[in-house]
Amino acid sequence: MKGFQFAGISAGIKTDKQRDLGIIFSTSPCTAAALFTKNKVIAAPVILGKERIQDGSCQAVLVNSGNANCFTGQRGMDDAKTCSRLVAEAFGISVEQVMVSSTGVIGAPLPMDKFTTGIPALKQALDSGIVEDFADAILTTDTCRKIVTRNGEIDGHPFEITGIAKGSGMIRPDMATMLAYLCTDVAISGPALKQVLTVANEKSFNRISVDGDTSTNDTLLALASGCSKVSIRSESSLSVFQSVLDEVCLELAKKIVKDGEGATKLVEIKVNGAASAADAYKACEAVAHSNLVKTAIYGEDPNWGRIVAAAGRSGARINPDTLDLLFDKEALVHGGQWLGPDAEKRTAQIMKQDQILIELNLNLGEYTDHYLFCDFSENYVKINADYRT
Amino acid sequence: MKGFQFAGISAGIKTDKQRDLGIIFSTSPCTAAALFTKNKVIAAPVILGKERIQDGSCQAVLVNSGNANCFTGQRGMDDAKTCSRLVAEAFGISVEQVMVSSTGVIGAPLPMDKFTTGIPALKQALDSGIVEDFADAILTTDTCRKIVTRNGEIDGHPFEITGIAKGSGMIRPDMATMLAYLCTDVAISGPALKQVLTVANEKSFNRISVDGDTSTNDTLLALASGCSKVSIRSESSLSVFQSVLDEVCLELAKKIVKDGEGATKLVEIKVNGAASAADAYKACEAVAHSNLVKTAIYGEDPNWGRIVAAAGRSGARINPDTLDLLFDKEALVHGGQWLGPDAEKRTAQIMKQDQILIELNLNLGEYTDHYLFCDFSENYVKINADYRT
Repeated sequence: MKGFQFAGISAGIKTDKQRDLGIIFSTSPCTAAALFTKNKVIAAPVILGKERIQDGSCQAVLVNSGNANCFTGQRGMDDAKTCSRLVAEAFGISVEQVMVSSTGVIGAPLPMDKFTTGIPALKQALDSGIVEDFADAILTTDTCRKIVTRNGEIDGHPFEITGIAKGSGMIRPDMATMLAYLCTDVAISGPALKQVLTVANEKSFNRISVDGDTSTNDTLLALASGCSKVSIRSESSLSVFQSVLDEVCLELAKKIVKDGEGATKLVEIKVNGAASAADAYKACEAVAHSNLVKTAIYGEDPNWGRIVAAAGRSGARINPDTLDLLFDKEALVHGGQWLGPDAEKRTAQIMKQDQILIELNLNLGEYTDHYLFCDFSENYVKINADYRT
Repeated sequence: MKGFQFAGISAGIKTDKQRDLGIIFSTSPCTAAALFTKNKVIAAPVILGKERIQDGSCQAVLVNSGNANCFTGQRGMDDAKTCSRLVAEAFGISVEQVMVSSTGVIGAPLPMDKFTTGIPALKQALDSGIVEDFADAILTTDTCRKIVTRNGEIDGHPFEITGIAKGSGMIRPDMATMLAYLCTDVAISGPALKQVLTVANEKSFNRISVDGDTSTNDTLLALASGCSKVSIRSESSLSVFQSVLDEVCLELAKKIVKDGEGATKLVEIKVNGAASAADAYKACEAVAHSNLVKTAIYGEDPNWGRIVAAAGRSGARINPDTLDLLFDKEALVHGGQWLGPDAEKRTAQIMKQDQILIELNLNLGEYTDHYLFCDFSENYVKINADYRT
């Protein structure tokens, strides 16, 4: 996309020679907006990022994997600032224009020597760099890179949004160990960008769960270069831009869940007919985070008892006698009654798919919500029992 | 214990010929009090139990495993009542004196023919029956029976409390798939019994977690026969009885967590120095339910980053710079600083134990709370992916 350059190299922060240092560089300062983790223990780069984003402008984003620079005290803060200064010097821009992100192990100081040599190398790599290199450099336990590009058109002029994300464990709203960067060539004001970003996030990254843990480092950052002929000013242009942004965020969110640690299936729970929006959300959230539901899905078992029990403990108003439960539109429970062995067989067949839609109709009102999650396998345990040691 | 008889037989409700039907029978009506699940989807025997307990009296408790009689509609309610009628007839007591509990798979109707033949067989088995038979008959995925007996003395007279429990998955407060029965020979009023039971429950069964799911069937029932010479009337006698009851409940709770599905370690998290009681509870609860913490413990990794991150997202007030973290009194983090490789080595050694105390000192106030939980292994996934199919 015109205006943006990407690079990703192996700087030696990870021990396995994988790419671990990446940059997004814009040829001119972009309008920028960001959302950060709501965890009370937050990493140094997030503290710094919250300050730097306040002017609504950003030209370069440095991301390292392999080390989260979290719980590293004053030294961590100094290191984050040093990283941004090294970028500013190497790329000849103001330090205020640099954002930094880190992801990986918590509690160890950044290996600063790797940044001292890595950042100039990143500058070297920029001209021949591709977005895939950057996408690879930000991964941790992810098994694949996550890039989504969508195009739109406003008043006959095309625009583009490219999103790059990482995250496969510690995934839960508010937000996950998730880093996501959205680059677009539209012109838009800072407040408008923040607004559409917040809306898109609520429907995508805030509706996914891998394991129910939230991270100290989560960052969702949007950069708008203004390099296309599209300027987002009118309500109608905002609405078009919002819908394309929504799609990019939702697709990235799906990629994150699908790549969930040990995940074998991508599942969507939709709760319909709730008595309130809060009830719909609570019921979705309880089902999506239930280890018993997640292990049953891994076992390809349409275990409706566990789904209903999870919704039952969620705090949402529920009447067991009005419940319907469907797997990919195939009913297994209707009006609180199990529909028998034939329905069970049909739904058991559906459970073998790698993508499944579960609908729980409460039939108590008009409210609906949804949540994306993955199943829970032995591999999740293996990955997370062995991660650090 | 004088006044109580127990039996447990194989009635054919489970398919594997294990004991699956048990009874506690008192030679005379007992004072009784009970606490039930807070799940909104509740099983028929719980609905019936809530009615029957209102008179504060009970003489017989029938428990079956293998089938939870939950989400079984009007038929389930009729079946629960039929079971209690069959007990009343076989044992020659009033139907109002009979409580029933069920645990096992949700959503299938009770196989009533097994009860028609099983309940008279249970009567036959009563004279030679032992508490162990009953304790075995109420198990589901548990790997061992759970019985705790403690004795006390008031005014020179001895008394006894024997508790029998089951539960190893779906364990979370309010309450777990947990059945627990407490039999004592003291004389006590119904309201006083309910009061001490509530206090004991709050400190034990409401502070344990295996997998964060709550059940539709949980029941904690106390029966006091008055067969000893001890009568609980004064404040001081109530206090002695409370302390013995607390111990029985806490020991049963520990047995449940230790037998958690796939568990290899029993862990206690204590949060000290919280700014409020709610903060202490929230931080404990978040750590005890974190899959990332639980898998790290399974991997014998003193992964303090995950513990701190879980507390950080709990909603409790936390200042990263004042945190201390100790494993069995061995400090790994002090004043927010990691204490280095030697401390890491010492705590890694502690993680090899099968019981571990983790203390998180927030140093923000005077409040404290605790929570018992277990680690999270591949076996948990195996057990729960295969349970029903």
